[in-house]
Parts: sequence; C-alpha cells; structure tokens
Amino acid sequence: MSKQQFGMVGLGVMGKNLALNSESKGYSVSVYSHFYHETDEFLKNHPEKNIKGFETIDSFVESIETPRKIMLMVTAGKITDTMIEQLVPYLDENDVLIDGGNTHYTDTLRRSNYLKEFGINFVGSGVSGGEEGALNGPSLMPGGQREAYDLIKPLFEDIAAKAHDGKPCVSYIGPDGAGHFVKMVHNGIEYGDMQLIAESYDILSKGLDISIEEISQIFNSWNDGELNSYLMTITSELLMKKDDLDTQDYIVTHILDKAGNKGTGKWTSQNALDLGVPLPLVTEAVFARFMSALKEERCEASRILPGPDATIDIDKNVMIEKVRRALYFSKIMSYAQGFSQMMMASNEYNWSLNYGELAQIFREGCIIRAQFLQKITDAYEKNPTLKNLMLDDYFLSIVSEYQSDIREVVSLAVKLGVPVPSLSSAISYYDSYRSKDLPANIIQAQRDYFGAHTYERKDREGIFHYDWYKKDK
Amino acid sequence: MSKQQFGMVGLGVMGKNLALNSESKGYSVSVYSHFYHETDEFLKNHPEKNIKGFETIDSFVESIETPRKIMLMVTAGKITDTMIEQLVPYLDENDVLIDGGNTHYTDTLRRSNYLKEFGINFVGSGVSGGEEGALNGPSLMPGGQREAYDLIKPLFEDIAAKAHDGKPCVSYIGPDGAGHFVKMVHNGIEYGDMQLIAESYDILSKGLDISIEEISQIFNSWNDGELNSYLMTITSELLMKKDDLDTQDYIVTHILDKAGNKGTGKWTSQNALDLGVPLPLVTEAVFARFMSALKEERCEASRILPGPDATIDIDKNVMIEKVRRALYFSKIMSYAQGFSQMMMASNEYNWSLNYGELAQIFREGCIIRAQFLQKITDAYEKNPTLKNLMLDDYFLSIVSEYQSDIREVVSLAVKLGVPVPSLSSAISYYDSYRSKDLPANIIQAQRDYFGAHTYERKDREGIFHYDWYKKDK
Repeated sequence: MSKQQFGMVGLGVMGKNLALNSESKGYSVSVYSHFYHETDEFLKNHPEKNIKGFETIDSFVESIETPRKIMLMVTAGKITDTMIEQLVPYLDENDVLIDGGNTHYTDTLRRSNYLKEFGINFVGSGVSGGEEGALNGPSLMPGGQREAYDLIKPLFEDIAAKAHDGKPCVSYIGPDGAGHFVKMVHNGIEYGDMQLIAESYDILSKGLDISIEEISQIFNSWNDGELNSYLMTITSELLMKKDDLDTQDYIVTHILDKAGNKGTGKWTSQNALDLGVPLPLVTEAVFARFMSALKEERCEASRILPGPDATIDIDKNVMIEKVRRALYFSKIMSYAQGFSQMMMASNEYNWSLNYGELAQIFREGCIIRAQFLQKITDAYEKNPTLKNLMLDDYFLSIVSEYQSDIREVVSLAVKLGVPVPSLSSAISYYDSYRSKDLPANIIQAQRDYFGAHTYERKDREGIFHYDWYKKDK
Repeated sequence: MSKQQFGMVGLGVMGKNLALNSESKGYSVSVYSHFYHETDEFLKNHPEKNIKGFETIDSFVESIETPRKIMLMVTAGKITDTMIEQLVPYLDENDVLIDGGNTHYTDTLRRSNYLKEFGINFVGSGVSGGEEGALNGPSLMPGGQREAYDLIKPLFEDIAAKAHDGKPCVSYIGPDGAGHFVKMVHNGIEYGDMQLIAESYDILSKGLDISIEEISQIFNSWNDGELNSYLMTITSELLMKKDDLDTQDYIVTHILDKAGNKGTGKWTSQNALDLGVPLPLVTEAVFARFMSALKEERCEASRILPGPDATIDIDKNVMIEKVRRALYFSKIMSYAQGFSQMMMASNEYNWSLNYGELAQIFREGCIIRAQFLQKITDAYEKNPTLKNLMLDDYFLSIVSEYQSDIREVVSLAVKLGVPVPSLSSAISYYDSYRSKDLPANIIQAQRDYFGAHTYERKDREGIFHYDWYKKDK
C-alpha cells in the first residue's frame, strides 16, 4: 500500500479546508479527528478526493510516508498539548509536526524545545486568511528548524496564496516561536487597520454628515489609490448591503456596535508592553473594542455627558481628502510600530527576521493584504536594518506631506466630539518620535525626588541622584 | 524572656524604615536578614531602639509572641517564595505572615492558597510612599483573611500615614490578592498623573514658550486649587532647583529625558487588557516612557521628520487656564479608568472592594495623594455602585464644564506639534464613553465578512450572520 504525503489532525473548518487545499494541489492526504464522526462525515462529503481517514492515531501516523509531515489544526491550548502527547509515541525522528493553530508564540517555543528531545521537528505556523484562505490559499508564517521547513516547503508553497507577481505568500520566518509571533503582530496590525477605517467612517458620517452611500463611494475611490487593500474593499462593499431581514435599510445601520475579539490583539499589546516597545495605535484599537462592549453604559452616559456645541465651517471635499491622508498617515504609524515590535523581538530571541519578506507574504491571503506592503518590502530591501519605517524615503515623503492633514483632521474630530483614539495616538507617536527632547526629564526628576530612582544627564556620562530635600539649592 | 510584638524579614531600606517606624510607635521588633551583616549593622546604628536581631530563622521566629505578626520586605519574586519556605516549618497555626513587597497580585493569590494548607494566615499588602513613607507613615493596602487583618490592624493603623482628619491611611482591602491588586492600579494611576503633568509642562514650555520659573509658579498656583497634590507640589519645587554640578542652570534642563520604570505600570495595562477594561490613559503613559527611552533614535528622527509650521494667535493667560482645566479633566478620566478596572477585578474575584475607602487611604502617605481623592470618596459614599466616576454629580459638573477646554488644548498641541498622548486619549475616552453609537458596527461587519464571526443587532435579540458573498443584496 502506498503511503500518503501529508497528514491533517483536526477537522474543524480550517483543518478540512487546508486538507482539501492540499489535495487539490496533488497531495494525498490522511486525516484524523479525535471525533471519528467528523472524519466519517468529511470523507462522505468528499468521496472523490485523494483523502484517507483513520479511526486511531497509530493507523493514521502509519499511513503517512516518512519523514512525515503532519499538521495540527486544533483549538490552541491544552488540546494541542494533548494531541502532541498522543502523536509522539508513533512518530519517528525527523518527522515534521506543524502546529497551524492560533497559538501564543511562547507555547510554540516550549513545545519546540520539548519535541527536540525526541528528535522530532516542530514548526509553529501562522495561518491567515480565515476559512476562505485555508481553502484557496492562505498566507503562511512558518517558524521552526530550517531543515524542517525545507521538508514542507514544496507543500507550503503549493497551498499558499499567490501574490500578483506569482510568488507564494509563505517564507521561512525564523526559529521556534518566530512564525506564531509574526502572526500575532499581524493580527494586532489588523485591529489597528480596522479601527482606523472605523474612525474615518465616523468622522465622515458624524463629523461631515455624509451618507452611507457616499461613504461607500469615497472608500471605493480611496481603494483605487495608495490605500488599496482588502479591508478597504470589503468595507466599501459591506456598507451597501441591504438588510437580510424585514427592513429596507443598510445592514450596517442595524448591526450592534459591540466589537468582539479573539484575544490576539490583546496578546500583541501585552507583548509590546513586555518588550518595552511603544505600540499605542494597536493598543488604542484593542481598548476601543472593549469600550464598544460597554453599550448599555454608553447609552446611559450619552444622555448625561455633554458634547461640544461646535459649528465649524468646513469645505467638505477638501476635508474628505484630508481624512484620506490622515488614514494613510496613521496606517504608516501603525505598521512602523508593529515592525519595530518585530525588530525588538527578533533581537531579543535571535530570530534574524527578514522584515521585507514578512511584508511580502502579507501581500495576499491574509486580512491585512494591501498594496502598500510592497513599499515596506522595498524599504527593508533598501535598508535591512532600518530603525523605523518613517525614516525610509518613500514613507518619509508621505508622512512629511500628510502630517499637516492629520493635524487638521484630529483637531476637527476633537472639536466636533468624534472619538479618534487611534488617529490621535498616531499623530502623538509621530510628534514624540521626532522630538529630540521629551518632557520625560520632568518624570525622571519626579522619580528621583520621591523614590531616589536616580537619573542620567544630557551633558555627561554617569548615574546621578539629587538631594531634593536640601534647603537653599 | 518576654517576646517581641512584631517581626521584620528583610533589611533593605524599606524593611529597616518600617521596623523603625513600628518601634517608634511603641512596638518591640525582631529583625532578620538573609545576610547577617545587614542585621548587625542595623542594630549597631540603632543601639537605643527596642529592636532585636537574630542570626537564624528559628531563633527569630521563636522570639516573637504568638499569634506572630511577621512582615516580609524582600525583593518580590523568587526570594519571597524562598523566605516563605524557610519560615513555614517554624510558624504556628494562626500566625500572620505579611508580604509588603512589590508583588504581582496573582503571586499573592497563589501563596495565600498555599499557606492556607498549613493554617497560616497570609496578608499581601501594598506599601506606598517610598523610603520616607515607610519611616514616617506609608499608605497601606492589606489584602487577606479578614481575621488575619484584625490581628495586625492596631499595628498597621499605628504605622500608617494619617490624613488631615486624623484617619490612618490603611483599611482592609479584601481577600487574598486584593491588596496587591489595588497597589498595582495605584501605581498605574501614578504613571498617568506624572505623564499628564509632563505633557502640561511641555505645552506650556514648547507650545506657549513659557519659562521654567514661570511654569513653576503656574504649577504652584494650580496646587492651591482643585489640582492640589503631592506630585504638583514637588514638580513646582523641583523645577526651581539649581544644578548641583558646575553649571548655574536649573537641574531639570540637564536631566536626560529617558524615563525609567519598574514594571508596575506595565502590569496595570496588561491586567486591564486581560480584564477587558479600557485603560488607555495609563497605557499611553507607559508607552510614553518606552518612547522616551529611544533618545538616540529620536535625536536622529528630529533632524529628518518635519513638524508643522504653525503660527497660532493665542492669548497666553487664557490658554494657561485652559491647560489647567485640561489637566484636571484628564486626571478625572484616568481615575475613572483605574476605578473601573478595580470594579471589574472586584467582580471577577469576588473581592467586594470598597472604592470610597480606597480613595480615602490614598489621601496621605502615597505618591498620588491629592485633595481630589476626597471627592472620589464622596462619590462612592453617595453611590457605592457608581458605574463610572464621570457620572457622579461633582465630576459630571467638572467634565461638562471643562470638556470644551481640553478640546482646545489638545487641538492646539496637535497643531503645534507638541505630543500629547495621554491628554488626547483622555478626550477620546470621554467622547467614546458618551457615544450612544460607536463605529464598532463597521468592525463587526468586517469581522463577519472575513471570518463569519457573527454579530448582534440593535433592533432585536439574537446572533446573526450575513451572507456577504451573495450577489444582488
């Protein structure tokens, strides 16, 4: 009996679609689920496919050619550990186990070290693009041993999304947790992108009194330029969708403004706090989702807390273009922050991340796919140790030109009472980063005053403490 | 031989000062340090005091009357666990072990459960006020078994700071980790307060071109009003201190603008992210410290990234008052966020925190002591289940009146290129909280579009999913 080329553990929608995707690229696939009825059902629904199902772990493992390539698509956490424990006894040295789940990178690091003891290769891979991406081509971010990746490279390149230049949206990210780390930051950036679009919508809608139809058209036209992206496309589209129940309204007008989250944005912010990297924009976006969840409190507060009574004379069309520029400016700040975070992690963990390549694999398959990612790739190809995206010539020219526009937009929103947590954090980040001197000297003086925490000086080396309590100084 | 009333483990500056503080209030104290030379030195420096030192743990424990009251003032972390392990064999049931270190509340929770097995009471207590507070009266935030607190209550009330009405700045906070949790949020709020003062300084200095001397006077005058606080006092003072080296300049002009941190601000933000509570202001303050650390990058960027070329006509004196109002408004937002976080934690852990009492014990001894804390106490006494500070009559009247001022100040700072991450997050928080409708409906639509994450509706109950890919809708 000839052996199968690829094994999939877990038959939720992601596992099923990745199995079908692989099979469609010519791979024979074995599948296993803890719940045999899932396997049974899957096989019955796809009788024509080159897919075999197994009821026991050992027969499943046995069915795959060595060195085996087995992917786990199970709910991240304890179940991942349990499945690994069940698989280990049947695996051989040099087999490659791939975790494609939504795993925290520190777990991947731990599992990688654990499996090393058995000589089993472990790849923790970010998989982005949702159900549809899993089936037709996801963006893949595999981290682990380079030799292990080389074994799965043909498969991963076959199933990955292809960018417009034909390149597959996958590349070796780095050792152990690097792949899941990059996926995490990708998700954080996604939170930022979505919040920025939502705030822009809010300014156009509440601030400039523009109708949904017109906003949809505006977004559509923005999508033809430097803001071109998947999220811009679908937002323009979804605004025009009519209710599928009994009203004749646009569906968005009936969707409750409580944004859920799966926790990866939170991870990104918490990690930035651990690494000591400023990541205000994504973090404001995460907090904005929490704020949205307080719907009942907000309704109550809206009846009590007053807004401004501003009447501001605005040339609407001029302002629409400024909002577009403010959005692009802020998007650049957000990616600058996310890439700084990846750079800090890469140094911390010795991952040698290739930032230009990361931007490249984000170009298709994943939610943040956008035209401007090519500009990021270009920037890092020109200068692989670029400290901050803003300092690249292209981005420098944009932010230099657009900084006056975002100032006007944020100022307008604040005066009109439209909340812009992420847009305003973008301009604060810009102004802080370009400040030779920040008022942090005051903070250091305070800390030394009340806690003798010491300080450094601008004019000479050393650690100093001032005797603040001494009289007559 | 008569036994001692109180035991102190750890003779760093905090441990020494708390031992001296207790002794000065009439308590006989035993002390122990892992390094006997510290004990020896401490005793030699204070020969007249009613303090005994011991070389071994067992003789130290043996010297204290039962039920023993022993406080650990050691570096938080592994050392705390090690010391507990060493103490446990010699302790009796009903003894009270107190951890006064800078401990993460989850560690306190864990240790509390562990020591329960031995029948040993455990109190995790926040101690605020630094060296000086430890000696002359700290603010204390003890969490643990109520019976355990009752045993140490007379001691804690004696050594704590006293507010102007004579009340000691200590009160039973709640079970297990509650005390250290409240201390953590206190520290986060401290980060916020310091950042807000620094941003106000920056606007006055860079934005309005006011001299250090004048800013010191302005802060001094603000300190006479509703902004009266310890941090306002010392900031006004420290601005006027002359260099202690060979220049004739004000010392702050030579202090390097890189703000350090001990990690508790980070903990507060990470915890808010875990609890799902919006805490943008403190978090922006933490990120601002990280940003300040990038001094070299900032210097480089300052030569490349342009600012605005704004010339804005301002009545300086009018604007100074607006900055004052913006500062007070933002301070209220920050405390509203911190108290919301404590409320969420209290519900999560069943701590039954008494918010009014918390504000009361912050009134003296600790870094955030301020006149306006009495207003918070008043607010929660009027309504113990107040959902957000802003909704209390007093705070409502302030924020209603000052919201137009902070809009002008943030708008001005943004236009002038002065970074105001925390001030601008304050007005965004306000405007979000008073928004009946946020653009989170757009985010939910996007999430349902690309990930089938479903949504709720405004007009009826239930969970919905839209068929976004269907044509002609």
